[in-house]
Parts: sequence; C-alpha cells; structure tokens
Amino acid sequence: MNEITPPKGLNEAGLIGSRPVRPDGVPKVTGAARYGADYAPPGMIWGQVLRSPHAHARIKRIDTTRAAALRGVHAVVTGADFPDLPDEFIGIERLQKNLSHDVQNVMAKDKVFYHGHAVAAVAATDPATAKAALNLIEVEYDVLPHVITIDQAIAPDAPLVHDGMVTRNVEPPTPSNITHRWTASMGDIAAGFAQADAVVELNFDSVPVHQGYIEPHACVAEYAPDGMAHLWVSSQGHFQMRDLTSVFTGIAKGDIKASPAEIGGGFGGKTKVYLEPVAMILSKKAGLPVKMTMSREEVFRASGPASDSKIRVKIGAKTDGTLTAAEIELYYNSGAFPGAPFINGVLCAFGHYAIANQYGVANDVVSNRAMTAAYRAPGSTQACFAVESVLDVLAKKIRMDPIDLRLKNAIEIGDAQIGDRTMSHTGFKQILTALKSHPDYTRPLGPNQGRGIAAGYWHNMSGHSGATCLVNSDGMISIANSSPDIGGSRASMAMMAAETFGVPYDQIRSEIHDTASVPYGDVTGGSRVTFATGKAVVGACNEVIDQLKERAAAIWGVDVEAVEWRDGAAHPSSSNAGTFEPLTLTALAADAQATGGHFGSSFGKTMSGHAPGLSAMFCDVEVDPDTGAVQVLNFVSCQDAGRAIHPSYVEGQMQGAMVQGIGWALNEGYVYGSDGVLQNAGWLDYRMPVASDLPMLQTVIVEVPNPEHPFGVKGVAEASMVSALGCVANAVSNATKRRMTRLPMNPETVLDALDTRGDEL
Amino acid sequence: MNEITPPKGLNEAGLIGSRPVRPDGVPKVTGAARYGADYAPPGMIWGQVLRSPHAHARIKRIDTTRAAALRGVHAVVTGADFPDLPDEFIGIERLQKNLSHDVQNVMAKDKVFYHGHAVAAVAATDPATAKAALNLIEVEYDVLPHVITIDQAIAPDAPLVHDGMVTRNVEPPTPSNITHRWTASMGDIAAGFAQADAVVELNFDSVPVHQGYIEPHACVAEYAPDGMAHLWVSSQGHFQMRDLTSVFTGIAKGDIKASPAEIGGGFGGKTKVYLEPVAMILSKKAGLPVKMTMSREEVFRASGPASDSKIRVKIGAKTDGTLTAAEIELYYNSGAFPGAPFINGVLCAFGHYAIANQYGVANDVVSNRAMTAAYRAPGSTQACFAVESVLDVLAKKIRMDPIDLRLKNAIEIGDAQIGDRTMSHTGFKQILTALKSHPDYTRPLGPNQGRGIAAGYWHNMSGHSGATCLVNSDGMISIANSSPDIGGSRASMAMMAAETFGVPYDQIRSEIHDTASVPYGDVTGGSRVTFATGKAVVGACNEVIDQLKERAAAIWGVDVEAVEWRDGAAHPSSSNAGTFEPLTLTALAADAQATGGHFGSSFGKTMSGHAPGLSAMFCDVEVDPDTGAVQVLNFVSCQDAGRAIHPSYVEGQMQGAMVQGIGWALNEGYVYGSDGVLQNAGWLDYRMPVASDLPMLQTVIVEVPNPEHPFGVKGVAEASMVSALGCVANAVSNATKRRMTRLPMNPETVLDALDTRGDEL
Repeated sequence: MNEITPPKGLNEAGLIGSRPVRPDGVPKVTGAARYGADYAPPGMIWGQVLRSPHAHARIKRIDTTRAAALRGVHAVVTGADFPDLPDEFIGIERLQKNLSHDVQNVMAKDKVFYHGHAVAAVAATDPATAKAALNLIEVEYDVLPHVITIDQAIAPDAPLVHDGMVTRNVEPPTPSNITHRWTASMGDIAAGFAQADAVVELNFDSVPVHQGYIEPHACVAEYAPDGMAHLWVSSQGHFQMRDLTSVFTGIAKGDIKASPAEIGGGFGGKTKVYLEPVAMILSKKAGLPVKMTMSREEVFRASGPASDSKIRVKIGAKTDGTLTAAEIELYYNSGAFPGAPFINGVLCAFGHYAIANQYGVANDVVSNRAMTAAYRAPGSTQACFAVESVLDVLAKKIRMDPIDLRLKNAIEIGDAQIGDRTMSHTGFKQILTALKSHPDYTRPLGPNQGRGIAAGYWHNMSGHSGATCLVNSDGMISIANSSPDIGGSRASMAMMAAETFGVPYDQIRSEIHDTASVPYGDVTGGSRVTFATGKAVVGACNEVIDQLKERAAAIWGVDVEAVEWRDGAAHPSSSNAGTFEPLTLTALAADAQATGGHFGSSFGKTMSGHAPGLSAMFCDVEVDPDTGAVQVLNFVSCQDAGRAIHPSYVEGQMQGAMVQGIGWALNEGYVYGSDGVLQNAGWLDYRMPVASDLPMLQTVIVEVPNPEHPFGVKGVAEASMVSALGCVANAVSNATKRRMTRLPMNPETVLDALDTRGDEL
Repeated sequence: MNEITPPKGLNEAGLIGSRPVRPDGVPKVTGAARYGADYAPPGMIWGQVLRSPHAHARIKRIDTTRAAALRGVHAVVTGADFPDLPDEFIGIERLQKNLSHDVQNVMAKDKVFYHGHAVAAVAATDPATAKAALNLIEVEYDVLPHVITIDQAIAPDAPLVHDGMVTRNVEPPTPSNITHRWTASMGDIAAGFAQADAVVELNFDSVPVHQGYIEPHACVAEYAPDGMAHLWVSSQGHFQMRDLTSVFTGIAKGDIKASPAEIGGGFGGKTKVYLEPVAMILSKKAGLPVKMTMSREEVFRASGPASDSKIRVKIGAKTDGTLTAAEIELYYNSGAFPGAPFINGVLCAFGHYAIANQYGVANDVVSNRAMTAAYRAPGSTQACFAVESVLDVLAKKIRMDPIDLRLKNAIEIGDAQIGDRTMSHTGFKQILTALKSHPDYTRPLGPNQGRGIAAGYWHNMSGHSGATCLVNSDGMISIANSSPDIGGSRASMAMMAAETFGVPYDQIRSEIHDTASVPYGDVTGGSRVTFATGKAVVGACNEVIDQLKERAAAIWGVDVEAVEWRDGAAHPSSSNAGTFEPLTLTALAADAQATGGHFGSSFGKTMSGHAPGLSAMFCDVEVDPDTGAVQVLNFVSCQDAGRAIHPSYVEGQMQGAMVQGIGWALNEGYVYGSDGVLQNAGWLDYRMPVASDLPMLQTVIVEVPNPEHPFGVKGVAEASMVSALGCVANAVSNATKRRMTRLPMNPETVLDALDTRGDEL
C-alpha cells in the first residue's frame, strides 16, 4: 500500500517492516533490566510520604519534631520546603501548566485537596523506620466539604475546591469549579442541523480509570555535596522529570543529571512528577541518596487517572449519509487541579470526519480527587466514545451500514477541522475499506450477540527529540536518543539507523541516554517517538554520513559532490566522478584516526510534519441476559501506521488498546465513598481485564506513508485506543438492544439497562 | 610573555589563567567521588588472581577442578580462556604493540615470565572464598633459569626469556634478550668530536621505579545475558581498556560500554590493561558482574614500573660552549615482554639542544620481571639524567655557568633534531633565562651543600580526543570529553569552553563520558589532554556557536555572515548587518524549542599542532658525610606551559615531578633476590618521599603560546619530570665532589662514593 517511495538517498536494506529482536528483550526476560526501584547507590536511604486522610481540608499545623528525632531518620520535608510558584497558566492553550498547582500536587502547602494528597515525607535508613516516623508527624486539619463527581462539582451550590478560582473565558468572572471553558465552531451549526434528515442527540457518562501500568512510580535522587544532583527515574520523560525537579527544588537544570531507568508501562501516567522533587529535597537535607517508591495503593490514590466525563453529542445526517452538523458539549474532571484534556475532546471528537458545520464546548472541572493525568490519546477517547455511539444510532436510523456511513464522511487531506485546522494526512478511507473487507465483518452472529464498529482520531504530536550517533573503530555504530523506550523504540531506532546507513541491524547499538549526554527530548507520549525521535536519529545518522562522504572525498581527492552513500559505503556518484573501489563504513571507521578523526553527531533540531492517527475497529460480544456479564468474542483493529517500522510493536500498541478499551468499557472505574475516599485502590477491587477476559485480538495494519518522515512513519501508539470504547459500547448496545451510554458497562449497568428500558436503536 | 594574541573569534572573559574550583574537588574531599573499586552492581561477585611463584617457568599442567567445585565459586579462568593472538608487532615504531605479548601478560599461557605473573583467576561470592579457591588450583611448573637485570639479560650466555626471539634490526638474526635495536644519527659524529675542545663520556645506571599511584588497579566487568557488556574502570583511557578487552575477549567494541571511574593517580602506569579482560571473561562465565582489585603487593609485583636503564653518553664541546657532537647508547629493560620506551630515550636525550652531529643507539631488553609501563615522559627521564650529568661535567671543564652552556646550545624553532625531526616550537631560552634570574640561583651554599641544574625535553603528544557540547534550556552548557581526568582537566575544559562561549565558568558543567556517549579518545597521557582534548572541546563549542549564530540569523532574518558571536551573545557583525539587540546564549537557549530546536555537537576530528615540552630546574642539597643521607633544601622548577589554563594544575604537575624526581633520584628502586623475587613489594620497604623529605617546591611558569592551540596551550604534564633526576644528581655530585652516575643515590650509594673515590668534576 505504499503510495510514496522512500526519500532519495536512503538505502533499503530490507529491514523496515521486519521483526528483529529488540535490544532490551533479553535483559527484560532475564531480569537484568533495571527499573525505577533497581538502582541503589552507596549510602542510600528510603523516603516515605505521609498522605492526607481527608478529601478536602485546611492544614492548620504540622509538627515534624518527633519524627525528625526518631533514630534512623535523616530528613523530613513538608510543603514549606517547596517554593511558592506563580499561580498562572503558561504554555500553549491545549498544554497549559500552572506550576503553583503542580508543586502543590507534589506536596500540599495550605490545603489538602484529596484523600492521599502528600503532606509530608521522611527519609530514613530503611522503609520501616521511615513509615514509623510518618506516624510521629502531627497534622491538625480543618476538614472542608468536598466534591468528587462532575455533577457534584458543577452543582450551583457546590463547595469550591479552590478559593477564588473563576472560570476562565467566561465573563463576568464567577467563582466556580469549572476552571476553564473553551469553545470552537466552524460553519453554521443551526443551518447544518436544519439540512439534516435525521438528528440524534445523546448524553454519555464515564468514570475515572487508571492506566494500569505494572511498575509503580519509583526514583532515586542523589544530591551531592558539591551541589550536583542525579535523578534515576522511571518515567516517560527523564528530561521533564529533571526540568520539573529543577523548578521545584531550585537546583539548576544543568546541575541535575537524569538517567532513564527502564519503565514498566506509562500510557501517559508517567509524564507527571510525583516523587522526584520530594526525593531530591530529602537527599539534599540528608546528604545521602534517597529512594522512593509508591505502593500500588499510593499509585491509585495519588497518581493521575484518566478523567471521568459527562458528554452530550448531537449529530445530524441526510438520508444519503452526509453528516450535516455535529455538536459536542463536554465536561472533563481534572481532579484537584485544572488540566484535564478537555480541549482535546473537542479537537478530536469529529476529527476524522468532514462535517461542514460543527460546534464544541469543553469544560475543565476540578474536584477533590487525585489530579488526572494523560491516558493514551488523552481526552479523545471519551469524546469519540460518545460520537461513535451517536453515529451508530444514526446509521440505523438512515439504514446505512455503519462503515459506509463513516466512509461517506471520511476526512480527506485538505479538509477543514474544527479549531481552525486542516487535515494534513489521512489513511482513513483505506482503514475503513480494509475493515469492511475483513472476513469476520460479515460473520453471522448468534443470540444475545452484537457487533459494534467505531473509528477514532488522534492528532498525534511531534515535539522535540535529541539523538546522537557515534561510529566505533570496528564499524559498530552507537546511536542514542532522548526518549524513554516504552514500546520498542530502541529496536525501531536501530532499524531506521541501519537502513539509513545501509548496514545490518546487528551493526547498530541503540540506547537511551541521560540528560547530559543527548540533546533535549520531550516525553515519550503523543505517539511521537517513532516519528519525531526517528527523524532525529535519521538526522544524526545523515550528519555522520555527510562526514563519511567528506572523508571518502578527501581520501579519493575529489569533491564531496562526487561521492554518494549507499549500501553502507561511499561510492563515486557517477562515472565522471572517477573510478574508485567503494569505501565501506567499516573501512572508513578502521582508518578514521589516520584520515582525520572519528565520526559522530549530536542532533537536536526541531522536526515537523507529523500526521494524525486514525483507527477503526469492530468487535463481537455476547451478553448474558441473566447476569449482565459481557464476553468479547472477537476484536479486529485496523490502523494506519504510515509505515510500520517493526510491525510487532505496532500490533502490540493495537492489541494493548483493545485490552485497555475492553477494561475501560466493561469493568474499570474508581469507586468513591461519601467520605471522598477511593474504595477500590488495588488490583483486587479495581477490575482490569485478564487473559481469560479476552478474545483473539486481530490487527490489520494499513500503510499510507507519511511523506514528512524518511520512512513514512506516523504515530501509532494512541489512535486505536480512541475507537475502543465506542466499539465495545456499540456491540453491547446491538447485543442488548439498549443504547449503552454509561461506562463501565459492568453487569450492574447492563442488567439495569435490560431491566428498566425497552428496545432502542 | 604572550607572544601571540588569542585567535580571532574567541572571547576573552578573563578566565584563562585564573584558578576556579575544580568540578571534581568537592566530591573528592568529601569522599563522594567513585573510584575503581567504588562501583557495586547488584549480584556482583569478586575475582582474585593466582600468580606465579617462580620468576621463569614452563607451565606443565593446571588443574582447576577443585577450585571450581568449591562452594561459592562461580567461575575459573586460565590462559586457555584467552585467544592466541598473532605474535607480531603492529603500530608505529615508537609505539609498537604485540597483542600476543599483551594477552600473555594479562594471563600466562605456556610459560610464566615473572614472579607474580597471572596464571589463573577465580570469581566467587566474596574475596575470601575466591582466595581460598586459588589455593585449590594445582599448577605444575618446570622451573627455568631467569634473568633480572640488564647485565644479566645481555650477558653472552644468558638464558633466553623468549624461545626463538631475535634482535630486530640486527642481521643475521641472533637469538637474544635484546629484542630490538634502533639507531639514528645526524651530521658526522666523528667530525663533531674532532672539533671538540673537551669531551666527556660517562656510564649511568638506574633501577626500576614504580609510579606510586595511590589507587591500586580496580575494575568491575558486567557481561549481560544479551551479550552486552559494561566495564567500570579506573584508568588513563577507558576507550583503550574497552578496546583491549574487546580484543582479548572477542566481544565487539560496540558491545562493551566502558565508564570512566575517578582515577587515583596513573602517571603512565594505568595505560595498560591487567584485570579488565580477566574480569570480563569471569563475568561471562559466571553470568554475574565481577569486581577485581589488586592489593598493593600485586601492584608492585605485577603492574608495570619504569624501565631500569644502562646508558653511555659522550658529548663534545668547544671552549665557547658550542656542543659539537653528542652520542648516546642505551639499554632499557622492558621486563617480561618487549616494549620499553627505548626509542624515546634517543629521541629526547638531546631534543632541547641544537647539536649538529648526533648518534644514538637504543636497545630494548627483556628479562624475568613484570612488564614495564609508561612513567611520565617514558624513556626520556633516564636518558636526560645521563645527558644533563655529562653537561654538568662539561660546563665545569670549560668553566662555563651550566645555565649559560645550555642557553648557548638551546634549540630554536626550525632546528634539526635526531630522527629526521625539526623543532616546531620552543620556549627553552625563555625558561633558562627565567631560571637564571631566579633570586635563589645565586644564593650562597653552605658546607656539604651542592646546587644542581638540569633541563629536559619531552616531545609531547597530540592524538585523538572526542568532545560533546549541549546547551540546556536554562542556558547551562554541558560539555563532556573522552579523557579520564587525572590532573584537573574537567576544570580546564570548562574554562576553555566558558572562554569560547564568553560565559561565566559557572555556566559550564564538565564531565568525562562513557565510550557510547562521546567520540573516541586516546589515553590521558603524553601530556596531550589540555592540548588535544582542549582543542576538541573548543571545536565542539565552536560548532554550537555556529548553530547559535545561524539561529540568531534566522530570528533576525539576516545571513549568518551578518552575525558574530562575542561575550556570550550573537551580535550584528557590523553596522551594515542591521540594528538588533544582542541575543544572549541564555535567551537563544530559552527560545530554542520555538525557533528550531536544541543546540548540541559531537566532535571527533583529529587535531594536530602539539608543541614539545621543555623544562629546566635547579635544586640545592645537603649531604651528611657520615650517613650519606641527602636532604633537598630548595627546588625551583621552570617550565614553558604555552599558556597555563589553570595555573594551579600546571604547578601541581611541576611540584609532582620534583617530588617524584627526588624519590627516583634518592631512594626508590626495586630490590630483587637471587630467586628473582621482588623483595620490597610494599610502601614500607619501597621508600617514596614523604612530606618531611621535601623542601619548599617552587614553580616558575613561562608562557610562550603555542599558535596551534586556540589558547596557546602546550602539554605540561611530563616535561618537568625529565629534568628532575639530573638536577638532583648534579646537586649531589656538586655537594659530594663525586660524580653520581648510579641511581638511587641512597645513603649506601653516596657513602660508597665518598668512601671509595676521590674528588671528581
């Protein structure tokens, strides 16, 4: 399906699309890989966090005297040890930060905003002593009324989470738990609905779900006597952990070296800083390295889940399937501090469709819960669940195949998108066509079974990546980059480097380097790494190839223009250039010292040209009418990868999205008591899918190369997550003949729908 | 004394020549710095070496069965685990290597060549178990006759150390313990002596001395299940340790990452590999990381000291002081395997003098002692001791001030040197003039006191260095290089980087990086680092400055030629270039992401242009005629630094050379029994100078900038070592009125001279 040829000048050794062993494979399966908790410098002590027992309270007094006096305790910190940072929103609108909020989320200052909120921390010779010391810290609270759900938070008489906070973008300024409202439109929404032959409007609700990564948060911080600091972090971005630790501790960025540990899953949840600045301040006070790890319970109570949501979607269509108007109103709960991906919800909801008239309004809501974090395609998943459900009803109303309805309205390059955007690249029609032709799509269903289809859009990201490339004298090439490897990127970078040089995969060694050894990189997130970091790695390799060509030219005594690089060697670029035997990389490397020095580059230029991610999928479910239990029978996911560098890792992303989608759709969800305390903070009570919950997960990779990447890559990590909820919801709706609008669709929800409602579309 | 101005385009922030705190200072004084033995990865076990009890023997049988069976033992290696490498000399003549010899020095194969030679090694859970296992290894030897001294080795009937070894460069091939003879000449030596009014010819002897570094050899090797390996090494060159470990283990270079530990002294003695390949093979066999350290006794018995020597020097002079002819014949003992710096002896002996007629013959001699290693200006020190002693006698003979004699013959740029060389740069006259004008030079001496002066030449080296430079978003600059920091190079690199950028010293963070993070670099040796690595660091910084200028040009919308960099900022290069406010590095760094990406470079180009090192010094001694004890009363050393980046570290090199020179001249020396066993393998019996042995050590830095370095640097680490032995010997000779030609001049030697000889020149 390649529609473009690889850019000129790149070699095709046939690696792209193959499935070599990943460099981190053996260390991971043998236990040699070192994760966040696996680093133990000499003299290391242990940090533990005291957490709020209240969902909302003012801190009247903290006395750490007795804790500090306990034998074995080396340091104690409270909010007073952290700076007062400006209470203002900075950055581009969709990714705004408020450093005052971020630092208070790390350690409470005047108020605790949720049960589990950090109020103090202790470092001691061992974890038990540190825990004992926590019990000696005296905190006096003024308990305040709390709000947990969106409905509670936006009720007219709701207690305010933040004193004096008003809704941005709304005049006159009114104190509210809605902290930001964002609207966008295109065309004429009223005229659009007027053209419609059928209009469907529905309301949807979802609850918070956790990313469910295997490895809890963990880090080691070492503050040395000379003011130099080291952070060992398991995160999606060691540069970001360093930078935020710098801001929250006052230690300059260049004085903190952050080393990337292996990471046992992130999915967006490891883009935020929790323990690192605490460990660093403890280390600075103690004069010893400090390790901190979260228990699983702490991960649930105090790290960020995905937002719960409240969404209204209204779409109008003509009988021929043309969508004439689409409207979305959404509320996303961001927990204790603003920052839910509410704007993404509007930007992605209809991103895959060409609809002339659109309107969207997004609300960011605070509540007394742990601050939310990203979760694969943050903000798009909840919105697309709603949109794809409404389209399912519409398709039935106008009696059209649901894939055909989506094909009819599929966006094309150059089409307008809400938010003053234009679609830059698409493989959406190709995906839908591939999905429709899948043999399972027409397989008959049995009783109590239903098939759902859904599609999804995620804008993907590009951002900043650093890469280095060094050639050893035996011709082995060391490449490194700035992006923590979560999904196999060391392998894909090695493959792209090998292809760029025209050498075997085995000639490349691929690593992730610390913040002092490679140019800055953004987080591993936004489906950006294979795209943007891949471009940086190819950029670094191309700089080295330029050096190799210059060296060959010098050896041959010709102009560099007379040299071309292919198949791992310098060749005369034409017969006019002279007659020379090719100079291989290995030969040039062996003679490097004698001919002018060693080859290396360090690449940090900004890359652009990322393409949005698109997915579509269908699944079959069977509902037990007696218990309400849903069994997923089959799941087929189709996604445009641009070009799949290592197809196993693309498939892994797609399979993971189906699993996580099944969990989010059917069972997962935070349960709070009236006291504002999370009641299911552990794997036993928070029900994630296990192997026996899953059908065969089928993947279909479509490749519509992105011309802005040397190998055609577009981000693949998040797009298939977006479709999964709607896909399962449509299948359950079709099986139950009840429109499912509330997640999770656990037995209670399904039985409730079966018991209380009649047949619906 | 600056004769050249700094090159155009470099900023002068006034740092060069100042004395800021070194980045490694606080970690070292607080104990936080991590040396060779301070790394302990999880699961680490301990290696120990079984060493030969004989000075020379054939290994008939090794049985490691019982050792391997001991509880707690994880791996055993013998010579059979190491490859048979080609028995051939490779590399340039002066620095030839024989990998077959090198690997046998690491682990004996068929023969042991010296007492202490490694024959097997064991890795076990703890050092005691490993030692116990060594006792269970059964080795059966055929003891062979041995030779220890040069005289023994070159005696006509001497037993041969190596079967079948012949003297290279001598026809017909004759089996001999002289493994290589090298001759060089210029002019007409006979005619030269014929022109002389006075001729002096003397013979000199010296014994082996150890570099006396504080930290014994230590390393940790980790061979991972996926074939990737890590070396933690305390050495003068982690790239060399990696490369030799690669050759001796068959693991590809790119699969071994070598990290530089701090190094507690090297002086040339840590340029060779001893433990690293052993630890790596043990680790590969055991599947666990292996730490190995030498005891002090092992350091003495099995690591390389400086060669003992036997030298004849003959020099002729006219009565006006003109040296008309100079001849040197020398034998250097290289221990078990060839490789003494014998050629250096001839190349350096008369390097600082313009003498029209010269002849030199150098012999490399093997014996049954530990293989020698480099020791500051290897090979030059012993030769200059002889030459400067002869000149002292000549000066007296022709009644000329000894400094004036040297000034009269001081070499100038463009003068011919033996070995088809031409003097490229010199500050020799400036040094001698400065020394002569030192107030202490004319201070009267008391009874039994003597003053000695001497000069020295060392060719210095350039070689290959890698450097990287990264700019953090807060404007802090991270630089790194490939040269282990022994003498303060992190500070000097930071100073040169700060000057190049025109920013404060505090804005630079300076590190040494592992072999996967910075381009290849040669050893920290040959007085090359401040020169060559400094040029690489400046090269990396200049590449980043080019990027900063391009960025400023893009921001201003002008050609890059319209931008110049000075004082830490981009400026319009002329009033025609436009009117813009300067863009500081900090501002450009802060906006890097928005304007095109981050700044970084990786620099590995070969640098040339090093200048030879020159030194001159005088000292006063007092000899106790009853005991023969020598007390050094005053020592003044003068050296041309080109330009002293951080004068404290130049002074430190000069002070260290005086101390080491006093030790070598007066007390140090290996003592062997007739069994070929070293009898003083420890600090108690091997007498190094302590503080009470030393006078005030005065230093005079002369600066004659080297135009081939951006800041005028020439190597300073070794040149003053060269003069020290002759200086002390001349002083003792002048105090005793006996010509001292045998080192060490310990009480026994001095009393012997006083008792058995009459007054001499």
